[in-house]
This record gives sequence, structure tokens and C-alpha cells, in this order.
Amino acid sequence: MAARFDDRAADALRPVRLTRAYLAHAPGSALWEQGGTRVLCAAGFARGVPRWRRGSGAGWLTAEYGMLPQATDRRTAREARAGQSGRTQEIQRLVGRALRAVVDLEALGENTITVDCDVLDADGGTRAAAVCGGYVALRDAVDALCADGRLARDPLHGRVAAVSVGLVAGEVLLDLDYAEDCRAEVDLNVVANDAGALVEIQGAAEGHAFRRAELERMLDLAEAGLAQLRAHQDAP
Amino acid sequence: MAARFDDRAADALRPVRLTRAYLAHAPGSALWEQGGTRVLCAAGFARGVPRWRRGSGAGWLTAEYGMLPQATDRRTAREARAGQSGRTQEIQRLVGRALRAVVDLEALGENTITVDCDVLDADGGTRAAAVCGGYVALRDAVDALCADGRLARDPLHGRVAAVSVGLVAGEVLLDLDYAEDCRAEVDLNVVANDAGALVEIQGAAEGHAFRRAELERMLDLAEAGLAQLRAHQDAP
Amino acid sequence: MAARFDDRAADALRPVRLTRAYLAHAPGSALWEQGGTRVLCAAGFARGVPRWRRGSGAGWLTAEYGMLPQATDRRTAREARAGQSGRTQEIQRLVGRALRAVVDLEALGENTITVDCDVLDADGGTRAAAVCGGYVALRDAVDALCADGRLARDPLHGRVAAVSVGLVAGEVLLDLDYAEDCRAEVDLNVVANDAGALVEIQGAAEGHAFRRAELERMLDLAEAGLAQLRAHQDAP
Amino acid sequence: MAARFDDRAADALRPVRLTRAYLAHAPGSALWEQGGTRVLCAAGFARGVPRWRRGSGAGWLTAEYGMLPQATDRRTAREARAGQSGRTQEIQRLVGRALRAVVDLEALGENTITVDCDVLDADGGTRAAAVCGGYVALRDAVDALCADGRLARDPLHGRVAAVSVGLVAGEVLLDLDYAEDCRAEVDLNVVANDAGALVEIQGAAEGHAFRRAELERMLDLAEAGLAQLRAHQDAP
Amino acid sequence: MAARFDDRAADALRPVRLTRAYLAHAPGSALWEQGGTRVLCAAGFARGVPRWRRGSGAGWLTAEYGMLPQATDRRTAREARAGQSGRTQEIQRLVGRALRAVVDLEALGENTITVDCDVLDADGGTRAAAVCGGYVALRDAVDALCADGRLARDPLHGRVAAVSVGLVAGEVLLDLDYAEDCRAEVDLNVVANDAGALVEIQGAAEGHAFRRAELERMLDLAEAGLAQLRAHQDAP
Amino acid sequence: MAARFDDRAADALRPVRLTRAYLAHAPGSALWEQGGTRVLCAAGFARGVPRWRRGSGAGWLTAEYGMLPQATDRRTAREARAGQSGRTQEIQRLVGRALRAVVDLEALGENTITVDCDVLDADGGTRAAAVCGGYVALRDAVDALCADGRLARDPLHGRVAAVSVGLVAGEVLLDLDYAEDCRAEVDLNVVANDAGALVEIQGAAEGHAFRRAELERMLDLAEAGLAQLRAHQDAP
Repeated sequence: MAARFDDRAADALRPVRLTRAYLAHAPGSALWEQGGTRVLCAAGFARGVPRWRRGSGAGWLTAEYGMLPQATDRRTAREARAGQSGRTQEIQRLVGRALRAVVDLEALGENTITVDCDVLDADGGTRAAAVCGGYVALRDAVDALCADGRLARDPLHGRVAAVSVGLVAGEVLLDLDYAEDCRAEVDLNVVANDAGALVEIQGAAEGHAFRRAELERMLDLAEAGLAQLRAHQDAP
Repeated sequence: MAARFDDRAADALRPVRLTRAYLAHAPGSALWEQGGTRVLCAAGFARGVPRWRRGSGAGWLTAEYGMLPQATDRRTAREARAGQSGRTQEIQRLVGRALRAVVDLEALGENTITVDCDVLDADGGTRAAAVCGGYVALRDAVDALCADGRLARDPLHGRVAAVSVGLVAGEVLLDLDYAEDCRAEVDLNVVANDAGALVEIQGAAEGHAFRRAELERMLDLAEAGLAQLRAHQDAP
Repeated sequence: MAARFDDRAADALRPVRLTRAYLAHAPGSALWEQGGTRVLCAAGFARGVPRWRRGSGAGWLTAEYGMLPQATDRRTAREARAGQSGRTQEIQRLVGRALRAVVDLEALGENTITVDCDVLDADGGTRAAAVCGGYVALRDAVDALCADGRLARDPLHGRVAAVSVGLVAGEVLLDLDYAEDCRAEVDLNVVANDAGALVEIQGAAEGHAFRRAELERMLDLAEAGLAQLRAHQDAP
Repeated sequence: MAARFDDRAADALRPVRLTRAYLAHAPGSALWEQGGTRVLCAAGFARGVPRWRRGSGAGWLTAEYGMLPQATDRRTAREARAGQSGRTQEIQRLVGRALRAVVDLEALGENTITVDCDVLDADGGTRAAAVCGGYVALRDAVDALCADGRLARDPLHGRVAAVSVGLVAGEVLLDLDYAEDCRAEVDLNVVANDAGALVEIQGAAEGHAFRRAELERMLDLAEAGLAQLRAHQDAP
Repeated sequence: MAARFDDRAADALRPVRLTRAYLAHAPGSALWEQGGTRVLCAAGFARGVPRWRRGSGAGWLTAEYGMLPQATDRRTAREARAGQSGRTQEIQRLVGRALRAVVDLEALGENTITVDCDVLDADGGTRAAAVCGGYVALRDAVDALCADGRLARDPLHGRVAAVSVGLVAGEVLLDLDYAEDCRAEVDLNVVANDAGALVEIQGAAEGHAFRRAELERMLDLAEAGLAQLRAHQDAP
Repeated sequence: MAARFDDRAADALRPVRLTRAYLAHAPGSALWEQGGTRVLCAAGFARGVPRWRRGSGAGWLTAEYGMLPQATDRRTAREARAGQSGRTQEIQRLVGRALRAVVDLEALGENTITVDCDVLDADGGTRAAAVCGGYVALRDAVDALCADGRLARDPLHGRVAAVSVGLVAGEVLLDLDYAEDCRAEVDLNVVANDAGALVEIQGAAEGHAFRRAELERMLDLAEAGLAQLRAHQDAP
């Protein structure tokens, strides 16, 4: 078994650091750092809902994801010029679904919460970090919105976190960094609520199709990691 | 247990009909019909590869997905005017990964195969149908390209198929149609190769987070369905 | 006089095949096949009219045209990515004008009918085929909309068909296929109603400017072809 | 028979005024004024040809058309913000075909001439005016390019002009202004070379489908108008 | 001290020519020619204001700027195809601010005036010319709108003009043409009202950072030029 | 004289905090915080230059500016979806010019440096902060690029900083925050090099046109502020 680049155990998360209320204006915000990955998450509130939802009495929660041009080793084109890539859209749709899984949209009234997740530094696992930090920003925003009366009651009925696991050189590893992700034969993102039930799983083989038994082992590892991440989300 | 709208058994596929060589110009094409879902798939060949891949000696395979405006009950805006939605991009990325899982890109040389999947009629399961039909179009195109010398050797090292399964009113069902999909608590797409190994899984809870045991039952059902779909792909 | 590639007489149409009600959701649809050209036409209905027409009490009919990427010998870029070309816009404007020529827009009320024409296989004459098939889809949609009460009365006051004629190697030919079209010195599209009156003519010289007498001969040939096409439109 | 708004005879052109060399930089330019319609035309030269034409040894000529936002009674959105409309693209494609009809593209070498036609004031007949003025700009540009050696020989083998005719209240009229165009039952644009042969005809019925005899009368009137326009194009 | 190309004194403007009411449809328009620079300005009126301003009771004035493709020595891409460049947006924002400086937006009511400035020929100083000509078009439009009752009272409370000055080869020059602008070490645009007070200054060093004393001398020269330009704006 | 909201003296800067090497991947980066404004700046290096500059032997430096959606009190639309606004383009062009003023582009060789300035929190003065932080990122990037040999010699021949000053309620104030900026009658941005010479000035009246004497007083205040900012740029 090959040692990981940073001598982590196969089932160890990278160090997590959470800074709540990172921003001045958003009602909830969080800088979520996990190893070399840093994602700035902000949850904002606006009256009204998208057109297709008007008159329903229920609200909406949407997420947007972006990566700063120099978050990566090789500068990427600014999305404001190049448009959002398919990858970006795929990720922001995942983050939105993950967060909506713990929100009672009826309780929002006809209001919209937008959770922005912007990657300042990327070193693998940015979509999972966006879910973890996005939840914290959402949690704090909801508290503020209830406190100032913009929300009548707490629409959150659970908590949500996400982690990546993978199969690298035949070994199941938790929380891949970018170098590991590049070498991974299978990459699996797992989103779960605080009852441990699955909200979303996305697994893709890169060259090595995987067996059910391998899936089981990856899910086991993810479960352990998710419990630790939920504890990090509680840090003040 | 509630009967399915069309009296199918929980583990039954909808009727599948395959028309190979549906188009005149593409080297491989297939009309894949599964219940009320009809997807026209075409595999085309072009010299050269995208810029980021030049000089590698290897080829590329990409998939594009679209839905005709009147494929759905309510007409959707033509993507040529509205641009590709996030959903469309998410699906075409999935189809591309699924097909690349059985292609030896080195064997393509610096050439590109594009598989277009256009939904003529939509009744649920279009992304799985696009994988199934896209594989047939790809298989036939590769045969034609080997025959006329544009490919030196067969780059396909396996077969791939996909199916949707879901949890509807507490019951695990195979191959959801649109009405079932709307009511599903969990929607899972499973892509597998002909050895039965998993190429991709995408599962999302809609309101009901799911347990590992439920995931297992869904995967069991998918396996059975995939075997049948592979047989349909062999039809002349 | 050179024989045509498929041994057709100069005044012969290619074989026409019409499949009504090709689609499940659209109130009217038709697959129009004419030789190697296949166009899928669908007519859909929506409440309301474009902004510039609101409050007029009258409705609107618009047509959209597209070509699937692999409808042609060399794959064309998907319009959802590349945007609609000038040629596409020119064609869809023609189809819209042609169909509006037989519609009483007042009788529609403030509703919009959209006729989508998507070319599955292209072998010349796609715009004329789109008019022919589009009319059939429109006719059937209107019948359905009158039957279910969405339209109070039949807004169609005539029928419309279109055909291409051309001057190839000095000879006037009816219904050019793609190979003939490429060699044509003059290309003329003629749209006419069932009274034989002209709704639109578009003729362009490609290298050989044409005389009035040549125009006359082309129009004669078109008239004969249009009568046959109207008969095809009546097929059940 | 109703008098025309400006008391013109049915077969009279509006007053034409031509200002050659209107611009400082373009090798050929012309302000073409016809009644209240004013179109600024400029012909520019660039080394190279579009990608699809490279290596052919032949050149290319393309036309672009635009309308200033306040050229019309009601300001239209600036195309730099709204994009080119279908109408704009249809017109610029027509102008390009018309001018190419008198150019020997081989004689251009692998160079491109772009003719820009910008409508300063619009009062009907802008596309015909763009052809007339565009030809003058092209003629003068070619002379300049031959003189300074950028072109080895004159690629123009003819002259081209265009005019609109129409059927208004049952009467055939030459050179419709905007008010007449709005009331026209048939609108026909005719492009012809200096031998009187037809380069392009585009006729569309607006509510009144037209008979062959009506087409004949419109073409007769157009022929007479075109002869006068060719004389205007020769003015110094 | 080097002579200027056209033998102008350092403090001399280029010849100015103003044609009021150049266009037929706009309530106010002006062709402003200054040396080889020609800008066509038009002021149009529309009911309503942009969304962000609704309900304020006040109106809005906005400016748009464009350059025809062949206004420059080397043809530039048509903005209708390439989109508005950063330079274009920077200029039109400047023109809008300059004109709003002399407009009482309350007096407009909830209406919008749009001033379009289109450069027909460019030879330096186009943004200053757009302000000068734009003011004239605005002045005349307001007079017409007051006369026909669309405006209840005159919203203009001052006049505005603009000029460029620069430092070329160490010398301060007024009203740079394009050739001078290319060689300028400093380029300064000065916008002022008829009381001589500054509305906007924009100065940028090109290679030679400038001292306060140089700024003073440039502002002195600008003041003298602006007085002359105001006189030109009064010409009938 | 009214006290400033934060009791600053009229000639006092807000507290400045600089974090160098904020990012992991970019060769130079800086988080520049000035009061409530926080701008993340990163300088990246790429081989090659834009097309219009190829073959010149010289390099290029460009700046891009963006604002995260929740940097402001009211969330703004993500530019990746809405495109870059005119304001954004105006600012990034200013930042680019400011930084190029201290770069010897010849010394870069045919390479490009891109400085990205992304506003995490906005409280006025973001463009000045982008120049200050952008210079630090550039300085550090150049050191790293010289050290690893990608640059043969130091292309920086000076230092650059920027500050805003304004006229608020008749008083000249240094370094406006957002609330002051909204009330300002004049807003002036001053960019200067380390010799105190001016690189760029941009001043705009908002309702109160300004006199030369007021400009002088604002420039005096800016000079004092710029000296302090240069000291902050030197902090390790």
C-alpha cells in the first residue's frame, strides 16, 4: 500500500478549517478550507421566486458555483467571459439539490435563498467542500433571517454534508486531493444528511469499472468521514 | 402495492425497439425507442482532436444531447435560441463518460468521434436511452470506419448500457416512465459494462433520503434490467 | 440531356412518404420524407402572443427550423452551441410566412402556434419539405385544438405547399436533390396555395443570371409539382 | 387608381442621390439616397479568406447590413446589444449573393472584400438600396485596389442593381416607400445585372396570393426601374 | 516645436461643421464633424424607464456609442457580431454621464431619452465629438418634445461640451487627431458645462507619467477650446 | 464640518491590511483589505501574447476584475451568467493601464501576465484597492518568475498605487467608503507612480460640477494618501 502524499491514513480527512461570517453583507457566509481547497460560501435572501414557481406559496433555494481564474495551477479563463462550463453547471446543480434536501421550501414563503460557492484555491474535492460550507452559510443565514423577521420560521429540517472517496491504485481512500483525484480509478461523491441517509451519490469510473463490493467499501469510508465533517460544521 | 400505469411488473422494462442505420449520412446511427421515449443517436467521425489533446497521439470521443422542442408535453424553447441548459450539459457529459468507458482512445489515433443523441419524444429515462442507443450507433460506426480504413483497429473493448431505477411510494421500480419519475422519492441511473461492472451511478433523493439497503435493492433491479438491455442492443 | 442520378424524369418528384401523428405530445405532427430528405414537423399551441402583439385580439403563428448535426454528409456544429446560422433564420422566416399565408390570425384569438421543423436527414429541398410537412402538422393540430375547444373556430382558410425547381446544365428540373442543387445554375423555391396562386417565390442565380423565359419554364414545372404535393398532403 | 403619397407615377422611382467616396478610409464608399432612405455603403479589403475557403486560390466577397437605432420611426434596439435579427441576416445574405454575381472570385486571389451597408434613415427599399450603393462602393474599391496593386486584375465582370416593386390596392407600383410597403399585398425585390438578366427575385404575398400575370407585370415594371438605377450608378 | 500635420496652432481646434436635424425620424439629431471625425448623433424618446428606476417619478437618459466597421483605417469587426468592446462601453458610459450632468431627471417624468452616437469616420477625438454632437441632438429633441407636449417642461439646466488635449513630444496640444493621439504621452478628455465648471476629466499617461504643472497647462488649453466648441453648438 | 461615519479625519485612509501570497498556485497574490473593502489579487504568467501582438517580441499585461455576487449589500447577478457589465470593463481597463505604466513590456518577452482582481467584500474604493493589491501581486509574481527563470530580467521600472478622493457636502475627503461615495458630489480616482507623477486621473461630477480649485485640493489630498499606500505595499 502506497503512502499518501501527505502521510494521511486512507480513512483520514484533510485538515478542516471553518471561518463563519467571513463576509460583511451576506446574512450567512463561511470560508470552508479543507487541505489546500478553499471555498467561500455565502447565502443571500431575496423576495420573490423564479417565474415558474410564482403563486405556489413556496420558496426556492438555488446554488451557484464558480472558480476564480487563478484557483488552479494553470489559470483558467474567467467565466464572466467564457461562460459557465458544463462542469460548473453540473456542480452547482448538485449543490443546489443537496441543500434543498434539508429545506422545507413551504416554510420559506415566496422567497429565494441563493447560496454562492466560489473556489478561491482548488486542490480537489471542491464540490463536496461547497456543500459543507454552503450548509454552514445557509444555517447562519436562516438564523439571521428568522431573527430579523424576514423568515417566519426555520425552514431547515436537517443538516447536510458531502465528501469524496475514491479508488486509487486499488485502495479505497477518503477525501482525495487533486493529485489523488487525477490518478483515481473511481471517484465517488457522497452527500448525506445528519441521520446518515443518502441524499445523493455520484460515482464514475475512470478506466476501471467497479464492482458492488468496491462501492460498499467506498460508502463505508464516506460514512465515517461525513460524521467528522458534521462535527466541523458545528464549530463556532 | 400499486399497479404501474401500464401494468408492468416492478422489474419489467418498457418495450424496446431498435432501428439501426436510421440515418443516411452518419457511419453509425440508431433510433432507440423504449416505451414512449424515442432517442435518435448518430456517431460521426472527424480527423483531429480538440486543442487541449493535440500531439497526444490519442483520440477523443464526445457526446452531445438535445431535445426537440416538442418532445415534451409542454413545448420547451429551442436550445439553438435559448442555449444549452444545465440539465442538458449534465446529461451529455454523462453520456460521453459512459461511452468513453468502453473505448480505447489510443486506438482511435488523433481522431474524434461525436455521438449525437437527440430526443424526438420524451417519456422518462432519456439519458439511459441515449447511452443504450449511443452505444449501438458507436458500435456500428466503428465497424464502418474499420471497414473503410479510417480506423486501423477496433477501439471498443467492451459494451455499455444504462437504465434508471427508482423508489416510488416505497417500492423499487425498474425503468421509470415520466409519470413515475415525477413521483419518485429516489431516482438512480446506473451505467454498466457487459461484465456487469459499474461505470457510473447517479442517485438523487427527492424528498426522501435513502438508506444503504434501499440502494442495494435498486442496484439489484438495475443489474437485471441491464442484462436485458444488452440483449436488445444485439438485435440486428 | 443528361439523365438524373436516380433516373427521374425532369418533371418528376422524388418519392414522398408522409407519417401523420409521428409524435406523442404535439397536437399535430408529421414526418415528411421526400427522397433522402426527412423533416420532422410539429405544431404546438400556447396561450398568449409575443409582446409586440398583445392586446390586438389576434394570434400569431411562427415557425422554427433546425437541422440535426448528423443530417448532412459532414457533421455540422450543433446549433444549441453555435447559435442559429443566417441560413437557418432565413429558412424559418420563409416557412413562417408560408404558413401564415393560409391562417386567419384573428380566428386564433390571442394564442400562438409554433411549428417546429427539424431535419433528420438532408438531401436537398429541406425548406420546401418543411413547408409541406409543416402544413400537415398545422392542419392536424388545428383539428385537435378545435376538437378540444382550445380554438373556437378553424383559422385555416387554405392549404399551402412548396417545391424547388432549378436550372441544371441548361435544363429545367423539378425537386432537386442535394447533388443537383450543388450543380444548379439557378435555384428557385416556389410556395403556392391550393388555388395555385403564388405565396412566395425565391430564385437565385448561382453564376448564371436567368432570363424571363427561363423563369417561366421553371414556374410551369413548379405548378405541376405542387399539385402532386397537395395530393400527398391529403394522405391519411 | 389612388395617387401615391408623393404624387409619383406608378412607374416612377423616388429621387436618387449618390455621393461617391463618402468615407475617408474605405477604398470605396457611397452614400445612396433614394427618397427618404439613406444607406451608407463601404467596401473594404483584407488579405486572406475565411477558413473554409483557404487553399482554394480564390477570394471571397461578403456583405454585412445594419440599421442605426434611430433610422426608423420607433427606435430599434442597437444590434451590438441585441444581436443581428433574422431580418438583418436575411438581407445581408441577399446583398452578398447579389454582389458576388458580378465578381470573378478567382480574380480576387485569396483576399476578401467586405461590403458594409448601414442604413442611416429608413423609408422602405433598404435592401435594394444596399445593393445599388454596395455595387458603387465595390466598383470604386476595385478601381482603387487595382491602382495600388493590391488586386492584379479587375474581378468585376458585370454590374448589378436592385429594385422593389409591389402590388398595392390592386395596382402595380415601382419602388415602394415605407407607407406603401406596409399596405402592399405583394412585395417583390428584383436583382438584375446590366444585361437585364435576373440575379435574384424574392416575392412574398402579404395576405393576397398572386397570379403569374401579376408577377409578369411586376417584373416589367422592375426592368424599367433597373435601367434607370444603372444610370444613377454611373453618376460621378 | 514641431509643426502639426495640418499646420494648426497648438491651441487650435480642427474645423467644426454641424448639421442639425440630419435624420428624418429622431426628434433631435446632429451630424458633428470635427476635422476627419464625423459622428452622427440622435436623441430619441420613449415612455417608461429601466426596471431599477420604476416608481421613482423621475426619468432617465442613456447614451449608446458605436463605430461603423469602416470608420477606421483597418476595418473593425461589426459590433452586432462581435459584441460591444470594453472601449465602446467605457465611452458610452462617459457620454451618458456627461449629458446627464445638464439634465434634471425629475423634469423628464418617467420617460427615457436615448442618445445614439455613431461614428461614421474616425480620426481621433470621437468621444469628445459624441458629447458635443450628442448635446445638440438632445437640445433639439427636448425642444421638439416640449413643443408636442410629450415633455411638460424643459429638463435641461445647462449645456455641456467636451474636448481632448494631450501632451505630444513634450508639447501641450488641443484637439488631437488620430496620428497625434497615437504619439501622445498623455491623453486628457475634459467635459465641462457652460459655466466652465468641470463635469468629468479622464487623463491617462501612455509611457510618460505627468506632473501637476502639465495637468494645469492641459486644462488651460481645454478651457479655451471648450468655449469655442460651445459657440459651434449654437450654430443653426 | 460633519464627522465621518468612522470618525476618520478628512485626510485619513481607512485601515489597510495586506496578506501576501494568499493563494497556493499563482506566482504572486495578495489579499488587499482597506476598511470594509477586500480584494483578492493574483498575477499569473502564460507563454504567448494576444494575436494582435504576435511577432513584436514584446509581452503584454492585462487585468481582469470581478465582484463576487454577495460582495455587496444586495446580491448582484453572477457575471458568469450575466456577462461583464460596462462598469466592470471600465474598471479592468483602468487597472490594466495603471499596471502597464510601470512595466517594460519589451522585458517580458512574448509572454503575458494576467492580474485578476476579485472583490470579496465591497465598501467603496474597489478599483483603487485593485490597483494597490494588483501591484503587490505583480511585484511578487515577477520576483518568482525571475527566480525560476521564466523571466530573464525584471520588467518593473516603478511602482504604482491608486486612491479615491471626493467632495462630500462641500468637503474634500480621502478614501471614500461606500456610504460617502453615494453622497459624493465629485468622485476622483488618482493613480500615481512612486515618483509622485500621475499615471491616470478620472474625476466625475455627480450633480455638482467642480472648479479647478476644488480639483487642486483633491489632488493634494490624494498625493498624501498615495505616499501612505506605497508604504503599505512594502509590508512583508
